[in-house]
Amino acid sequence: MAGAISAELKARIEEVCREALRRAVPSEAERRRTLEFTERLIEALRLELSREGLDADVQVEGSIAKDTWLAGEKDIDIFVLLSTDYGRSVFPRVLKAAKRISGENCLEAYAEHPYLEAYIEGFTVNFVPCFRVRDAAEAKSSVDRTPFHTLYVKSKLNEQIKDEVRLLKAFMHGIGVYGAEIKIGGFSGYLCELLTLHYGSFLNVLEAASRWRRGEVIDIERYYADPEEARRLFKGSPLIVVDPVDRARNVASAVRVGRLHEFILASRLFLEKPDIKFFYPEAPKAYLADEMLRVMGSRGSAFIFLKTGPIRAVPDILWGQLFKSQRALSKLIEQFDFKIIRSDVWSDEKSANVFLFELATRFLPAVERHIGPPIEKIDDCKRFLKKHLASEHVLSGPMVEGDRLVVERRRRYTDAVNLLRDKLRDGGRSIGVASLVSKAFLESLEILVNEEIRDFYASNRDFAVFLTKYLRGRPSWPL
Amino acid sequence: MAGAISAELKARIEEVCREALRRAVPSEAERRRTLEFTERLIEALRLELSREGLDADVQVEGSIAKDTWLAGEKDIDIFVLLSTDYGRSVFPRVLKAAKRISGENCLEAYAEHPYLEAYIEGFTVNFVPCFRVRDAAEAKSSVDRTPFHTLYVKSKLNEQIKDEVRLLKAFMHGIGVYGAEIKIGGFSGYLCELLTLHYGSFLNVLEAASRWRRGEVIDIERYYADPEEARRLFKGSPLIVVDPVDRARNVASAVRVGRLHEFILASRLFLEKPDIKFFYPEAPKAYLADEMLRVMGSRGSAFIFLKTGPIRAVPDILWGQLFKSQRALSKLIEQFDFKIIRSDVWSDEKSANVFLFELATRFLPAVERHIGPPIEKIDDCKRFLKKHLASEHVLSGPMVEGDRLVVERRRRYTDAVNLLRDKLRDGGRSIGVASLVSKAFLESLEILVNEEIRDFYASNRDFAVFLTKYLRGRPSWPL
Repeated sequence: MAGAISAELKARIEEVCREALRRAVPSEAERRRTLEFTERLIEALRLELSREGLDADVQVEGSIAKDTWLAGEKDIDIFVLLSTDYGRSVFPRVLKAAKRISGENCLEAYAEHPYLEAYIEGFTVNFVPCFRVRDAAEAKSSVDRTPFHTLYVKSKLNEQIKDEVRLLKAFMHGIGVYGAEIKIGGFSGYLCELLTLHYGSFLNVLEAASRWRRGEVIDIERYYADPEEARRLFKGSPLIVVDPVDRARNVASAVRVGRLHEFILASRLFLEKPDIKFFYPEAPKAYLADEMLRVMGSRGSAFIFLKTGPIRAVPDILWGQLFKSQRALSKLIEQFDFKIIRSDVWSDEKSANVFLFELATRFLPAVERHIGPPIEKIDDCKRFLKKHLASEHVLSGPMVEGDRLVVERRRRYTDAVNLLRDKLRDGGRSIGVASLVSKAFLESLEILVNEEIRDFYASNRDFAVFLTKYLRGRPSWPL
Repeated sequence: MAGAISAELKARIEEVCREALRRAVPSEAERRRTLEFTERLIEALRLELSREGLDADVQVEGSIAKDTWLAGEKDIDIFVLLSTDYGRSVFPRVLKAAKRISGENCLEAYAEHPYLEAYIEGFTVNFVPCFRVRDAAEAKSSVDRTPFHTLYVKSKLNEQIKDEVRLLKAFMHGIGVYGAEIKIGGFSGYLCELLTLHYGSFLNVLEAASRWRRGEVIDIERYYADPEEARRLFKGSPLIVVDPVDRARNVASAVRVGRLHEFILASRLFLEKPDIKFFYPEAPKAYLADEMLRVMGSRGSAFIFLKTGPIRAVPDILWGQLFKSQRALSKLIEQFDFKIIRSDVWSDEKSANVFLFELATRFLPAVERHIGPPIEKIDDCKRFLKKHLASEHVLSGPMVEGDRLVVERRRRYTDAVNLLRDKLRDGGRSIGVASLVSKAFLESLEILVNEEIRDFYASNRDFAVFLTKYLRGRPSWPL
């Protein structure tokens, strides 16, 4: 592809990249403020930890440590490295110390590992206790590996490559695939850094990605003689980037298949038609409420919204629960023969959560076909006949169709709303709704159909943007 | 199974069979009338043929020749055997001769072979010209084989076996699987005779059939060392009965899979609970029109009836065309995403024909998903984007879903009735409707939905029985 790029196109690409870089590199003021704030946090935490009598190293990790953060990015990762002698029972004491310097606005979380997420002076600070191990392969959990990532990247970076990393991060951020958090399921900062180091520049990454195929293997330190070996090991991953500090890890394991392919397509389109909107999309717009209703109505489908009040959990827990519940609800709906056109989930992560299921129809006919056993299964046929000859739910049959018995019977749920109301009466734990969502369903479930969403739409700008995007269905970047 | 039958059950089975036989064997009067009428036909035809200057043998075939016809069966097969020296060009002269003795009420037909079907004095007489060949394997078409079938069966029959044959035929007739004609797709008289000869008695046939499996091979003359060999040769046939007079033919080739399994299930149930209704079902009932509408309405589905005026053709041609058209219409309907619950076709073979499609819903939502190419197909993606970015039919997207492009667009037909009206405007030849049906559609198509069928239902008893049976969906024999 690179070979086919005209000089004119190349110049335009470079121009857009220059403009993007200008906006992606933090200003001196931001840099100073962030670094000073980070230093203060570290000092304060060190003091608290020594008061606790803990012998620990406190250090910053992530993009702040590597000087690759994007202007405006407000995530600070503070790691507390402890001797393995302490054992996991020391973690609560570390979190207690972190809490004392965080004030009120924080949440204790437990993913693979306990940590504290605090919201201080506009930053999101993650305090993460971990063990000091000799090398990454000895890591007890993934956070023990992070300091090695930082060291690896810092040893390879120079000032020019940092710009290339920032371009890639800004591009990924702009097209909505940046971040390994569950909500996004995209590319972590570390992954962006590795890709840039591997391919040498931002544009090289895009050119390579344009031609990636599902199951692409990138093995920077050439740990595997044959990519098939890595593919077998990381089976099912749509993208495999072997961790340079631990050959047994896939750095891209969080990347979901949709995000990967958005990146691939956006890379291809950017190289054909460079545009600053890939990096910095226009501010999202929302339809006016009546316009939204008209657009929704023109689809002729049924929009079913399940709305709940707040769920208090860190975003990764929250989104994990939301997605799990969305899958369980989709499965339920389809199991009862309703056809889902598309489904999505929204949360502002504080006051409300909404599941959206767009169905081909809200109502199904009363009659439902039920395929019985093959005629040659003598005992199964006997049971089937016995059951259905006596049943008052049978509308037609039993009959022979082809080599099987069939009945047509009265459908249990002809209204998808009734189905949901019924199955969520107990919060829906039994059908697989995640615990916190189930609790929220019990406390505050509202089921809204089509235009019944109007009031909430009109009152919540973030939701309005979400639903508008859903209806347009297009990426924010130029197709 | 036989081993498990109690003496009491055995006695009841025998009692039912005695009663059935009493009704299945033609009376002396019927026998004399039929044979005399047949003789007269043969004499008359011989005279006409010699007037034509044709050297031919005229003989009766089928169940009249073998004395195995059922009381009330009114089918007479008259074959005209000619020397192969004549060639096929002689057939029209034979038919002309036959026409002269048939009067007005007859139809010339051409299936594999030309023949004349005449309706005389309450009988349906088939006049079939064929070639006199040395053995069945030399047959130029299946009718040349018929005289060998007659000879084979006559050489094996005795009076007692004739009763057993009649019981089997009456049973098959009663449960609706008797007849190789296209309308039925069941068991021919010859096939009934062979099964009876092979298994030795009516009840033995039923006991064997109870345990038949799909692809059962019955090879009376043991032409094949291994049934798998026959199964390979007659691949796809649900039942294989190797023709004793021609090892390359499957006598059961007309038996459709549904008919076979109806027979299997009915055999099993009869042996458990013998009942004269298997042989002689109760006269079919029809719902009163309002009751029918209530039952139909309770299903919540959409009944679409395509009704036409008469199609003049012999039944095999007519039903072949009706079934072919039904398949084409079903394919069309499903291709446009409408879900067919069940479908059926009715004809009185003279004045009217009706296709019935019961759909889950008559209307579909305006929005329709259209799955595009995988992202990794670069050129396909380019084409897809180009096409859909410009299209005014796109409601949402293009978007990336998983590893593919997707759009949601305006559906071409949201109303199944509009779809049918549109595609049948030209008779429907282009979508695969058979020629005579297409002609009837052009001349006299009515599309009726749900209760719009009421008038026709109320005016046509045969159709009312058909629709009632459709709605009940149960066999006429006791389940």
